[in-house]
Amino acid sequence: MAKRKKKLTYADSGVDIQAGDAFASSIGSMMRRTFGPRVISNPGGFAGLFRLDYNEKLFQRNYRDPVLVACTDGVGTKLKLASTLDDYSTIGVDLVAMCVNDLVVQGAEPLFFLDYVAIPRVDQAMLSQIVSGIAGACRESGCALLGGETAEMPDVYPAGEFDLAGFSVGVVELHRATDPMRVQPGDVVLGLASSGVHSNGYSLVRRVVDHASLKLGKVYEELDAQRTLGQVLLTPTKLYADPIVNLLRAYRVKKVVSGMAHITGGGLASNLSRVLGNSVDAKIKKSAWKVPGVFRFLQEQGGIDEAEMWKVFNMGIGYVLIVRPSFADSVSRRLERMDQTVYRIGSISSGSGCVTVK
Amino acid sequence: MAKRKKKLTYADSGVDIQAGDAFASSIGSMMRRTFGPRVISNPGGFAGLFRLDYNEKLFQRNYRDPVLVACTDGVGTKLKLASTLDDYSTIGVDLVAMCVNDLVVQGAEPLFFLDYVAIPRVDQAMLSQIVSGIAGACRESGCALLGGETAEMPDVYPAGEFDLAGFSVGVVELHRATDPMRVQPGDVVLGLASSGVHSNGYSLVRRVVDHASLKLGKVYEELDAQRTLGQVLLTPTKLYADPIVNLLRAYRVKKVVSGMAHITGGGLASNLSRVLGNSVDAKIKKSAWKVPGVFRFLQEQGGIDEAEMWKVFNMGIGYVLIVRPSFADSVSRRLERMDQTVYRIGSISSGSGCVTVK
Repeated sequence: MAKRKKKLTYADSGVDIQAGDAFASSIGSMMRRTFGPRVISNPGGFAGLFRLDYNEKLFQRNYRDPVLVACTDGVGTKLKLASTLDDYSTIGVDLVAMCVNDLVVQGAEPLFFLDYVAIPRVDQAMLSQIVSGIAGACRESGCALLGGETAEMPDVYPAGEFDLAGFSVGVVELHRATDPMRVQPGDVVLGLASSGVHSNGYSLVRRVVDHASLKLGKVYEELDAQRTLGQVLLTPTKLYADPIVNLLRAYRVKKVVSGMAHITGGGLASNLSRVLGNSVDAKIKKSAWKVPGVFRFLQEQGGIDEAEMWKVFNMGIGYVLIVRPSFADSVSRRLERMDQTVYRIGSISSGSGCVTVK
Repeated sequence: MAKRKKKLTYADSGVDIQAGDAFASSIGSMMRRTFGPRVISNPGGFAGLFRLDYNEKLFQRNYRDPVLVACTDGVGTKLKLASTLDDYSTIGVDLVAMCVNDLVVQGAEPLFFLDYVAIPRVDQAMLSQIVSGIAGACRESGCALLGGETAEMPDVYPAGEFDLAGFSVGVVELHRATDPMRVQPGDVVLGLASSGVHSNGYSLVRRVVDHASLKLGKVYEELDAQRTLGQVLLTPTKLYADPIVNLLRAYRVKKVVSGMAHITGGGLASNLSRVLGNSVDAKIKKSAWKVPGVFRFLQEQGGIDEAEMWKVFNMGIGYVLIVRPSFADSVSRRLERMDQTVYRIGSISSGSGCVTVK
């Protein structure tokens, strides 16, 4: 049979360049609202430009030995939940939080953020929700949304699927960067309350929902009197960057914070152990705070072991600070004034780098 | 029917934390081979640390007003081709090239790179190929592979699907950053040869393959005497960062390069127009170089319009430099000494920001 050749164009191959362009221009204004004076305008440029220091004398940081701090993260399968609920307004907040919360652990001030969004087709409403969430979280974290890439790949992502990756860069003076060697016996461990499940463990969350035939659109009284299960589970990850940067700035001379950890996949013990040297242990007392209802609800519905819960979820503590004992109260008060819920969850003793949660 | 509750664990939900950990440790050594003296060791850290300047006096750049340059990109549906051919050895090179080639357009020296890899299941062989390609390309571009994220998401990516996103940061002195206002009438346009299709237009490429029932495993004599169609199409994107950084360093005082462009989606005209001010035009002469056989092969097999070809593909020119006329020869010679194939493809005249390719 003779093949009838039809002329192929790029549009035939499923990629709509014009829809992509229209979206690119509409996000321009969302991005600009995150720009501070250090962003250099670069229309048509191939990359984003960010001046390390301020031009204005008043704001100049005068870095002596600046260290760039960089990280990348995604939001895991919390994506699927957003997709199932057709609500993309908060997933961008999760994406920024997963990155900037990691940056500030190193003592860094977040400078800028870039996003990669992969979708089957340009869907302006969905993309606007995502980027609007990203931009809002960037503003709240004091960083510029300097660039991004929207990849339209109908052959990789079936309808309803998508993916997000975030990249963030911060800066810290070399001598002010956090260092695990600084954590000492006697130090106090403070925990900042999480807003919920944050962005880890959603493969398990979704299994529990299936396993127990839970309805995402239903209000479960034992969980939340007003919000549906879906709304509770979509609660965005808490952004700790702004309070932590402010806290560190307040103690410019004295190094009162000896270590910090962002509690993500692996839970409290595994993330906290990353910031301990080999000569100290951390002892965490579970009784110091009440594990939020959402975790107990998931545990019960899924019949999940207590130990497994602590390995997968943050269990109510999203960020940890290790501080010098004489400053524990003043650090707590400062953080509380910045609307953080702070618990004194444990202490550091001599040891071998172990964390116990009891 | 009573539901039998089985205890759920994270492993049940399809995510294998241990396989992920094993991979993370195996890529550690690949990453370390990309590290220069500016990378600060940060075992267990939450982010990568990169010292902006060198410690050693001899290498110090002594930045006065450093501008950070950042970009993110993916490789589009070239992914699918790698997947179909089960060859992931070059796709990481594409990922790095898409980012660092954009960075150097701004006059920046690449500093570091981070990757995001999303896969249905940890497949060590596949991931090693990807990361090995990324690390090799980072070394070749003089940048450190500072971090990365491997996201295992069986529910988002069906078997055989995956995605990659790259993120790169460079630095340039403010007064040395490229500026579209610098392009002047009389300037000469130089084109650097591409290595093939690079990383744009693969949705169309794959349509052509389907449309004309081409076989990726077959050698088409008119295309290449030795390599199969699949091998030709997987040729990695050329890395221009090292030669461009070296070139710019050679002309430290004189600003001989007035503008540059990385030719990606949209082709020569659309990418070149991004770096022109409103008062100049660029005239490109197609006769200045021979369009490589792969493009003519695709055009013929797909029955694609000539205009469409130029809008989608690089047509043999992967990177463009606009240089002062009196330096065109010396710039060409320098680039040729760094193994680049250089064509004098056009010139700049007064105008309104238009590019013509004739």
